[in-house]
Amino acid sequence: MKACILIVGDEILIGQIQDTNSGWIAQQLSDIGIHLVRALTVADEHADIVDGLNLAFQVADIVLMTGGLGPTKDDVTKLAIADFMGVEMYFDWSVYDRIKSMFKKLNRTLSPHHRNQCQMPQGVELLHNSMGTAPGMLFKKNGKYIISMPGVPFEMKAIMHDHVIPMLTALSDQKIFHFTILTARTGETIIENQISHIVESLPDHIKIAYLPSISAVKVRLSGTGSKTALLEQEVMFYAQQIMDTLGEIVYGVNGTTLQAELQKLCIQKQVKIATAESCTGGNIAARIVSVPGSSTYFNGSIVAYSNDIKQHILHVNPSILDTHGAVSEETVMAMVDGVIDLLQADVAVAVSGIAGPDGGTEDKPVGTIWLCVGTKTHKTTHLLTSGKFRDKNIEAATMYGLDMLRRFVKKM
Amino acid sequence: MKACILIVGDEILIGQIQDTNSGWIAQQLSDIGIHLVRALTVADEHADIVDGLNLAFQVADIVLMTGGLGPTKDDVTKLAIADFMGVEMYFDWSVYDRIKSMFKKLNRTLSPHHRNQCQMPQGVELLHNSMGTAPGMLFKKNGKYIISMPGVPFEMKAIMHDHVIPMLTALSDQKIFHFTILTARTGETIIENQISHIVESLPDHIKIAYLPSISAVKVRLSGTGSKTALLEQEVMFYAQQIMDTLGEIVYGVNGTTLQAELQKLCIQKQVKIATAESCTGGNIAARIVSVPGSSTYFNGSIVAYSNDIKQHILHVNPSILDTHGAVSEETVMAMVDGVIDLLQADVAVAVSGIAGPDGGTEDKPVGTIWLCVGTKTHKTTHLLTSGKFRDKNIEAATMYGLDMLRRFVKKM
Repeated sequence: MKACILIVGDEILIGQIQDTNSGWIAQQLSDIGIHLVRALTVADEHADIVDGLNLAFQVADIVLMTGGLGPTKDDVTKLAIADFMGVEMYFDWSVYDRIKSMFKKLNRTLSPHHRNQCQMPQGVELLHNSMGTAPGMLFKKNGKYIISMPGVPFEMKAIMHDHVIPMLTALSDQKIFHFTILTARTGETIIENQISHIVESLPDHIKIAYLPSISAVKVRLSGTGSKTALLEQEVMFYAQQIMDTLGEIVYGVNGTTLQAELQKLCIQKQVKIATAESCTGGNIAARIVSVPGSSTYFNGSIVAYSNDIKQHILHVNPSILDTHGAVSEETVMAMVDGVIDLLQADVAVAVSGIAGPDGGTEDKPVGTIWLCVGTKTHKTTHLLTSGKFRDKNIEAATMYGLDMLRRFVKKM
Repeated sequence: MKACILIVGDEILIGQIQDTNSGWIAQQLSDIGIHLVRALTVADEHADIVDGLNLAFQVADIVLMTGGLGPTKDDVTKLAIADFMGVEMYFDWSVYDRIKSMFKKLNRTLSPHHRNQCQMPQGVELLHNSMGTAPGMLFKKNGKYIISMPGVPFEMKAIMHDHVIPMLTALSDQKIFHFTILTARTGETIIENQISHIVESLPDHIKIAYLPSISAVKVRLSGTGSKTALLEQEVMFYAQQIMDTLGEIVYGVNGTTLQAELQKLCIQKQVKIATAESCTGGNIAARIVSVPGSSTYFNGSIVAYSNDIKQHILHVNPSILDTHGAVSEETVMAMVDGVIDLLQADVAVAVSGIAGPDGGTEDKPVGTIWLCVGTKTHKTTHLLTSGKFRDKNIEAATMYGLDMLRRFVKKM
């Protein structure tokens, strides 16, 4: 089954809004084995939408449309679909009643715009929208499908999850099974080399992809076949070999995050953590706090941006700062001790580095970052030599800090 | 002049990579008054690319292509263009010499893939790529243009800046001038109401757009005309009226950020700042530190995630915590005092709230967030009632915290 995405939106063509719907829908289609052959964006114009539908029907069996269904520009997409399908519009009382009761709860009154939302092309099958007033729409013609959804991402996603993905999964003539192995702190090339013997042994219907980001690489296996259970077993056979080979750089699989894995370990081992951050400026703490429930194991953080604070709050010995400098192994080790005492944590991570663009020296160029993780009695340090870009240096140090915490707590 | 974007990339259609090139190019075209009528993504397949070029030539005068020019899949786009143009390929020695000398510097040897990069369709005008080996390509046919660029965003952007934007600006039959007013902490509807009398007086060739994000709205004026100087003067006439009406909610214009504006004020007023963060967990500090040079005015932060830390490190009186709770006006005021003393700052902001999804009560539901900004002697507080989503609550509180700091320092 082949699909085409058709995005309706002036605001995307004039560069006002970045289209994120296409990328998300593409991922979902890939997950269920539907082959996306085109993605097209057109303006909120009748003729352009009809043009887009014609193109889509030439190359695909399924057209997934988003946009042009809000209360203010409600007509254009629906009228274009009606025109393309050769049908008239009708007033749908079930849509009207639903909007009316939603608005009653919110104490708002219906505008003429909302009455427009109840006009529907004949032959439509409505797809309930649990997140908004405009329902999704399904049309069938000559064995092909048009699915039209609102452009608001969370409304589109709700309709996709509730209706479209189950329907397309049933239609899909091939099954696909993805498994993603998440790694931190090792580059793509090194990973490729380490697992090349496994990759060479992969059968043709299992593909591998490397998705690198700063200080992290996702390794994804995708198997295609006709029987889900067998496919899953096959993919997992190779995935397990890859995970065994990569060892401790693997922090999780599929949709998790470093901070979510860290949470599991802290709760399991009943460990309280804290951070002492210089160049990361609170980014490690912010990442930890992004996980709901972090208050049970995260005590807090000291963002020690000045030497004064390193010395007076974290009690880094001034002789260490004088002799080795703020960006040194000795300083980050002392910062760990200081923050553990201050915030009554069991384990802490500390970071001090030169994020740039200024502040580098010959000895310690921009991108020199020292990290330390540990308890009062046992510590591990790491010297990260990142690049010249401030954003990337902060992100790299944040990822390293989180992963050093994860590995340390795991071994406790 | 009408344009069509044509993205070549399997990796986008299978959802592996999010296409960000289209959105960026759309913005650039809008800025120079070129009308983008379609954006199309096709696979790395000869027939699909030729198909895409045919569609693009039907609706547009300029086709902007990206992708399909890397060393490993170099042929497909160029062969498809040659086919579409009806020309043969030739070996370009200038491209070869350039790659050879680049590789000599890097001590790398050329692979057969790199020789492929030197094969070019006849009639091409090469666009120098300052960031990589694959040059951009320009073709002219029947008064129409094809511009093909590598898919790597920073290479594409370099070619756009160096060659394409200047060329298209010269071709563009209309000039466009954008001016964006950045506001924080006020909703779109309120802003619309406040400036409706100005918006009503806008001439037809000046349009207004509202771009809302969490706790921030960008108000953009776009004027279209034939004379740049006059246009700029006209747009600024209305922009000034809007800024005067909106007053202190305006934190800057065009490409700046809240934290960059805060930096200017702190340096100008010679003020040292600090943050005491509970539910924002270091996000305000991280935002401040994202600006190069922040070490000159930012002392640091205490992420006081537990009551213990609020009490023992920030010296919030336990009777305040007992009587009013951690999420209270009294607590954030005491946190400001505590962090100013501890980190020797002049001004501080403090945040304490219930980010969710759990932890809400009837009195203080999820999304209840108290903020305080000030010095030891003069403070301003704010109760933010946000929603039920943790991410949004943290982002809203971060924006409020930064903006409260900005407004406070501005008045010093």
